[in-house]
Amino acid sequence: MPAGRVIVDAYVTRGVPIVTVSTAVAQAVAAAPHLASLSGELRRTMLHACADALAAAGREIVPTALEETGLTMARLRGELQRTTDQLRLLGDHAAQPWRRVSAGVAAGGGDVVTVPVPVGPVAVFAASNFPLAFGVSGGDTASALAAGCPVVVKAHPAQPRTGELLGQILARTLPDGAFSLVAGGPEVSLELVRAAGIRAVGFTGSLTGGRALMDAAAARPDPIPVYAEMGSLNPVLVLPGAAVPATVSALAAAVTGSAGQLCTKPGLVVTGSAAFADELADAVAAVPVHRMLTDGMAQAHEKWQAHASAAHRVVAGAGSPAPFAVVVNVDDLAGELLEEHFGPSVVIAVGAAEDVPSRLEGSLTASVYADDSDREAARALLPGLLARAGRIVWNGVPTGVAVCDAMQHGGPWPATSASWSTSVGTEAIERFRRPVALQGLPAELLP
Amino acid sequence: MPAGRVIVDAYVTRGVPIVTVSTAVAQAVAAAPHLASLSGELRRTMLHACADALAAAGREIVPTALEETGLTMARLRGELQRTTDQLRLLGDHAAQPWRRVSAGVAAGGGDVVTVPVPVGPVAVFAASNFPLAFGVSGGDTASALAAGCPVVVKAHPAQPRTGELLGQILARTLPDGAFSLVAGGPEVSLELVRAAGIRAVGFTGSLTGGRALMDAAAARPDPIPVYAEMGSLNPVLVLPGAAVPATVSALAAAVTGSAGQLCTKPGLVVTGSAAFADELADAVAAVPVHRMLTDGMAQAHEKWQAHASAAHRVVAGAGSPAPFAVVVNVDDLAGELLEEHFGPSVVIAVGAAEDVPSRLEGSLTASVYADDSDREAARALLPGLLARAGRIVWNGVPTGVAVCDAMQHGGPWPATSASWSTSVGTEAIERFRRPVALQGLPAELLP
Repeated sequence: MPAGRVIVDAYVTRGVPIVTVSTAVAQAVAAAPHLASLSGELRRTMLHACADALAAAGREIVPTALEETGLTMARLRGELQRTTDQLRLLGDHAAQPWRRVSAGVAAGGGDVVTVPVPVGPVAVFAASNFPLAFGVSGGDTASALAAGCPVVVKAHPAQPRTGELLGQILARTLPDGAFSLVAGGPEVSLELVRAAGIRAVGFTGSLTGGRALMDAAAARPDPIPVYAEMGSLNPVLVLPGAAVPATVSALAAAVTGSAGQLCTKPGLVVTGSAAFADELADAVAAVPVHRMLTDGMAQAHEKWQAHASAAHRVVAGAGSPAPFAVVVNVDDLAGELLEEHFGPSVVIAVGAAEDVPSRLEGSLTASVYADDSDREAARALLPGLLARAGRIVWNGVPTGVAVCDAMQHGGPWPATSASWSTSVGTEAIERFRRPVALQGLPAELLP
Repeated sequence: MPAGRVIVDAYVTRGVPIVTVSTAVAQAVAAAPHLASLSGELRRTMLHACADALAAAGREIVPTALEETGLTMARLRGELQRTTDQLRLLGDHAAQPWRRVSAGVAAGGGDVVTVPVPVGPVAVFAASNFPLAFGVSGGDTASALAAGCPVVVKAHPAQPRTGELLGQILARTLPDGAFSLVAGGPEVSLELVRAAGIRAVGFTGSLTGGRALMDAAAARPDPIPVYAEMGSLNPVLVLPGAAVPATVSALAAAVTGSAGQLCTKPGLVVTGSAAFADELADAVAAVPVHRMLTDGMAQAHEKWQAHASAAHRVVAGAGSPAPFAVVVNVDDLAGELLEEHFGPSVVIAVGAAEDVPSRLEGSLTASVYADDSDREAARALLPGLLARAGRIVWNGVPTGVAVCDAMQHGGPWPATSASWSTSVGTEAIERFRRPVALQGLPAELLP
């Protein structure tokens, strides 16, 4: 019996609202016309109600997530706030006017007016590393609902009780069929992506997992888009003027925070200073780290440490997981040194930064630490970084993504499957709605 | 030897700038950083220069296309104008500011500013039915260049001399490597889509052709987006008050114009009036039609006529191709009666319109003909049409797509592969650029 099945059965025994994929999708398809007909103002009300309900249940949600994830109380409290803020912001955005008008261009001099239309039922895969803000109640759920799409969320198998609790709150707050929760292993994931009624997919997780969903979506009789956020190296280039103690402590904290289980964790730091590299390596190794989200992640982290130690200089701290830094020369950068490794570790490369951007794959972010004396060197690095990242951070760590209008949380492959799109910020709503041009339609009939 | 190879050899013999896929892609990759570095104003200059060069060569272009396509002189002259207008409009759009700013939200109170970045080399497949406006010099080429992307265009095998001529003009007008022309059969198409340097694909053509490119793109180690515009039924619902002679003549002209070889040809007309159906069928059959673009298309059209005649009432005119209408009952609508058939033919369904939208697949357009007495019936139809089309036309034919800011030329599968995107209008540029957020970057370093 696959692991997923056990979870489903456990849920069924307890009488919670986990349903089969076919039931969930049928409910979503049935609810889609009603949701599409809601005004932006009503969708705003709906998302604010979800935020209120989640906030009211904080004393239940945070301890449950604490137990299942190992993340800290402070982090989870902050994440719940972020989750409710995000729902409210996207609800507010849904209520804002969205029309493009080209006047008098239609045949006979009529207007062409473009309005947004929801794409239909959306499948969302809850991420484990943000159990609330990218989990069942996370960004993809919020933006799909804001767009007017019913959602079918697959809970993360590592956090069944957190997923169930969030799902119960959302299901009882939202209109019938607007939200359904399913659970299970990879076979349930594929069944969901292949379901005829599903029109788009949101996913945050591993490259392997995202690619499997993309392949299934691309093989459908009617391919559907998969918005997958996957592996990201998040390079940080430290220029000479900024190789200072404040940069060391900021980077060490970013590498080890949440046990390095953030999609924006800096995975590579490049510096011209061997001394800075050593200081950073020591600082990373010195940070006490809490347990990882799953045993599988902890084992992968240990395996990477052992593997890296065999070939490179590794400075490691104590504990399980042990934070560590792999210190190499810039010329050695290739292969797995340029890939994402989840957990509290970083590759520190000593050497010139100039040639590094051209050797990188796509990333969610790229950071440059520089002072005034580095301005021209930084300017020369920018075109290469712009071509490879979705966000450029100046004198700052890439962790801590602001939820705002101008945010872009996405990047070229393998960071995401759709670099035009973002999974954070108000523009995230656009992945789940599409423009429809209305040509010459009388004003009274405009949606 | 495949047909494509013959064309390549013929070109090589004549010394024109057709190159192999690997050469073209290498040139595009080499040119990408330079193109990305051009200001919007310089890209505007570049696109206007292309428009000027094409306009200056009109006396060469139009007769060449006339001979290869069978389209009329008036149509081709109009299309050249549309092509140059489109290049200028997209160039103007490229020069417009495009920034989203969220002030004071980055760590330390810095701004997050989002700017567009070109995705890199784009493969464009020239369509046969608009040899100029969606051919080598067409919308995808214009929007990719406007976005700052080099293009590699595959000429349509049915129009080698037109493609060559347009390619020569563009290649000598644009910066080195910004434009390359390749030619050949399906194997060359797949080679182009699989080339590592290509970052996005634009295609207009058949569902079979588009799907083959999508499958190849999805199977890459790094999947890339394919913007394919494919089959569209373009249903027209004629409500009682609008079943008048003016509607008959407008629809008959739209069905038969350009020998029915438009992606927006009305393929299905629904009317409650048997008399209107007969009048429209007779009017369609009475229109003299010029030859089709290729022998293959003409044969498919004849085959569809024979096939439909065996099962339904068909009213056909004279000539080759013969314009014809398939007259059925609304209850018969299923299968191939709801699929696109290229050529001067239409399915006319007699019966109530209410249940028709829910039986349709995605389309580029849906039209409603109505007068004041039909207002409430039209209102009831709108949600179903909004869910299935990219453009709703009120009392008008779907052919003749205005190139403007608010245009949406796209729709749910199988009309296109990416319903969020448009291939006509200024928003088309967005398929070939992606947002990058700049967090805390000093103003002097903003691109």
